[in-house]
Amino acid sequence: MDFNRYFTLQLDKLHTAGNYRVFAELERHSGGFPRATRHRGDGTTHDVTVWCSNDYLGMGQNPKVIAAMHAAIDQYGAGAGGTRNISGTNHAHVLLERELADLHGKEAALIFSSGYVSNWAALGTLGAKIPGLIIYSDALNHASMIEGIRHSRAEKRVWRHNDPKHLAELMAADDPAAPKLVAFESVYSMDGDIAPIAEILDVAERFGAMTYLDEVHAVGMYGPRGGGVAEREGLMDRVTIIEGTLGKAFGVMGGYITGTRAVCDFIRSFASGFIFTTAIPPALAAGATASIKHLKQSQAERTAHRNNVAKFRAMLDAKGIPHMHNPSHIVPVMVGDAKKCKWISDILLDTYGVYVQPINYPTVPVGTERLRFTPTPMHSDDDLRHLVDSLCDLWSQCALSRAVA
Amino acid sequence: MDFNRYFTLQLDKLHTAGNYRVFAELERHSGGFPRATRHRGDGTTHDVTVWCSNDYLGMGQNPKVIAAMHAAIDQYGAGAGGTRNISGTNHAHVLLERELADLHGKEAALIFSSGYVSNWAALGTLGAKIPGLIIYSDALNHASMIEGIRHSRAEKRVWRHNDPKHLAELMAADDPAAPKLVAFESVYSMDGDIAPIAEILDVAERFGAMTYLDEVHAVGMYGPRGGGVAEREGLMDRVTIIEGTLGKAFGVMGGYITGTRAVCDFIRSFASGFIFTTAIPPALAAGATASIKHLKQSQAERTAHRNNVAKFRAMLDAKGIPHMHNPSHIVPVMVGDAKKCKWISDILLDTYGVYVQPINYPTVPVGTERLRFTPTPMHSDDDLRHLVDSLCDLWSQCALSRAVA
Ligand SMILES: Cc1ncc(COP(=O)(O)O)c(C=O)c1O
Ligand SMILES: Cc1ncc(COP(=O)(O)O)c(C=O)c1O
Repeated sequence: MDFNRYFTLQLDKLHTAGNYRVFAELERHSGGFPRATRHRGDGTTHDVTVWCSNDYLGMGQNPKVIAAMHAAIDQYGAGAGGTRNISGTNHAHVLLERELADLHGKEAALIFSSGYVSNWAALGTLGAKIPGLIIYSDALNHASMIEGIRHSRAEKRVWRHNDPKHLAELMAADDPAAPKLVAFESVYSMDGDIAPIAEILDVAERFGAMTYLDEVHAVGMYGPRGGGVAEREGLMDRVTIIEGTLGKAFGVMGGYITGTRAVCDFIRSFASGFIFTTAIPPALAAGATASIKHLKQSQAERTAHRNNVAKFRAMLDAKGIPHMHNPSHIVPVMVGDAKKCKWISDILLDTYGVYVQPINYPTVPVGTERLRFTPTPMHSDDDLRHLVDSLCDLWSQCALSRAVA
Repeated sequence: MDFNRYFTLQLDKLHTAGNYRVFAELERHSGGFPRATRHRGDGTTHDVTVWCSNDYLGMGQNPKVIAAMHAAIDQYGAGAGGTRNISGTNHAHVLLERELADLHGKEAALIFSSGYVSNWAALGTLGAKIPGLIIYSDALNHASMIEGIRHSRAEKRVWRHNDPKHLAELMAADDPAAPKLVAFESVYSMDGDIAPIAEILDVAERFGAMTYLDEVHAVGMYGPRGGGVAEREGLMDRVTIIEGTLGKAFGVMGGYITGTRAVCDFIRSFASGFIFTTAIPPALAAGATASIKHLKQSQAERTAHRNNVAKFRAMLDAKGIPHMHNPSHIVPVMVGDAKKCKWISDILLDTYGVYVQPINYPTVPVGTERLRFTPTPMHSDDDLRHLVDSLCDLWSQCALSRAVA
């Protein structure tokens, strides 16, 4: 087989379908966020405003986070130097795990290389190691959860997105004696909708199931201490495992789970994706700890963030730019056409200095192509005005339909 | 089902079998490596010398690496702020990928969160996306490769460890038209043996197979520019994909593959574990780039390292402490009993200030339990003497057999 030819053919298909991804090469400016320098393919650069970062609160440039990382590098060096078991557990990891357990009101926590790995490894291990486990997975769960469940080879039922009634139906149809796990997210990142957590927990508890909640897009952002939507709704103690990331609102990198000492120890002891990999650098652990500690105390970022999101939505409404109405901080502006979506984002980037990534199939269904905006507390009123004016220009040029004002 | 009770029971079984892992909590000292402070469970601390780090050359405290990380944090901030596709590609990532491609003489490179994820995602994607692919996997391949192959659900054949003849037999038995991939490592981390790369490539080429070589324990360490064993043996251009880590000899964290532009682009475009996760922080990319650049030029670390390994082996031989004779930098001192192995390492740690992790089943077969030492260029002659004297004491106390001198 001519492998290279095969790869090239598959890539050609992506090009033809308009799904080939070109990464925007950026230099974010610490202290200047959301401003960044973009490197064009031809070697030239220009300034852009980033409108699609998952560093939702700008904690990636918070002085406490930066200082904690510098200090840890000077104290401990660059990397961890080993897996957690073989010389790689640093004091900074232990402190971070304590901080995370406290954040979610749980006995214990466990850090992974990323949120992706935490979902994949935790669900993969539970599904593989609990004999007869049936996993009930929300239809829109993230790729990392889907892959973890798939890897585990456990029985899987997919329930309609955010539909506790359908979940209950599926659970009722299964053997009451079978061990069960319900896996879902709080904030879904593409539509920005939020799960009816209490109702899902009601159903899960009725059937004696464990619950696994991905709060990746909610930690740091919701709840009085940034514990996520479950904290805001007073539900953390009813969730068996709360999973999160250190790479979005906390501004660094890494993932984690929290739960009872036993469940964390179980996954620590059996998850290949936890055991056989180098621990995260102490500097990341220290930076994340500083970030979590700060957002436990400070409401300023969350308040400013909510205000900016509300302002942006109001400005879009005033101009009739159609966007999804959801209760979160994610503002999907609907285009509904892959080519137009890409075209608009290219012009926004090249002509208006506005960087937002087009979200096309397969990430979202065909016909719901969108620009996914994530305003941060660092975006100024001028930034918002410039963005909405730019969108208005393009909406007219592109003959896209307006929402009824 | 009482989940917590189930988890506790499984953990009890590990305790009973002597396989429950307790992590040593360390503070490595930048500038003082291999010295570290160990935190005991009771809150007290003491000083230890680390003898089992995979920061083989001490690059985790190299001034250039440290400086590059500091500079990147000040310039770009803490995290990448997004997935590679959605605002997370930083200029530092692009520079690192160029550096890696150059290191292995390949057209392109692709960074992942870790070496584990690079193996899992690359092999998982190739196995799933090349219809009919048969993967030939060395019997001692690392967990991350095994899980990737398993996840792909491709046909799999396991060939006897480092046995090209067995590989050829298995390949000859399969359909000549089926696309094939041969996956193996250069340095195997537990026995420290090295694959007969040229012979394996001969077989793979004879059957028109792609080759996938994990050089995780070799990059930075072997070859005139630290390109690994394949570089040392002039074989890099014959290997389709060379995979490595940034978390061992390079001293930071992250993983990568290198290969043709087409194969890297293919995996970039289809690998869930690459696409749906936050990019590594620019500071890690910058630190790793500095580390690679340094080890491309400098032989000092590799030479000092080889000398220390040779000195250590000679001292062990002089005292009749049995160790595996292998052609690499990994020195497994054989104990052959799980309880004694744990007992010796506990006393080494508590009484002698020597930290080495016991390696027991399931990481190695029962009866081959060992202490896996990794002397670095930073270990002094006094360190070596103290270690060997300590081992002698314990060998006598423990009535362990000596090798014939
Ligand atoms: C819902 C969800 N879970 C998990 C992840 C993975 O987290 P991380 O980026 O830390 O790997 C993401 C996005 O990346 C996500 O959207
Ligand atoms: C052979 C081999 N491949 C891959 C890995 C994973 O690399 P990383 O630690 O960067 O995840 C390891 C060890 O951790 C390994 O020993």
